Amino acid sequence: MNFKAEIDIMPLEAILDPQGKAVTQSMGNLGLNEISNVRIGKHITLMVDASSENEANEKVDTACKKLLCNLIMESYTFTLTAQ
Amino acid sequence: MNFKAEIDIMPLEAILDPQGKAVTQSMGNLGLNEISNVRIGKHITLMVDASSENEANEKVDTACKKLLCNLIMESYTFTLTAQ
Repeated sequence: MNFKAEIDIMPLEAILDPQGKAVTQSMGNLGLNEISNVRIGKHITLMVDASSENEANEKVDTACKKLLCNLIMESYTFTLTAQ
Repeated sequence: MNFKAEIDIMPLEAILDPQGKAVTQSMGNLGLNEISNVRIGKHITLMVDASSENEANEKVDTACKKLLCNLIMESYTFTLTAQ
């Protein structure tokens, strides 16, 4: 079976996000003062071939831990959808 | 009212995503050959202060169009949750 994974990787709350801070400031310059607390992370989609949803879950988790996510500075969540 | 927006910005399907291609290859090197078609975009969260969900929707849409998303190469979707 083929699953589509949608992964969100965000900087941890405790960690300063300078890119987000810069964008928050720019919002003010654009007249969007009501927007605050911008935080910028990654959104990753991928296809995974597995015999069950459990197996797919494990593979995506391994991919996040070993390659996609720096666990010292980032956290991740993902969802799987059967295709 | 305060709303939290979760924005996903992805490269358009028609556009080559070299970062995603590189990550797809690395998956093979890690023994995760079942993972394919990795595409990498941005996940942005922000807070928006607005009197109604409609107004919040409009503000976030403006922010995406004017600042966050390059519409020539990327597409965006977002969801709003009242806080």
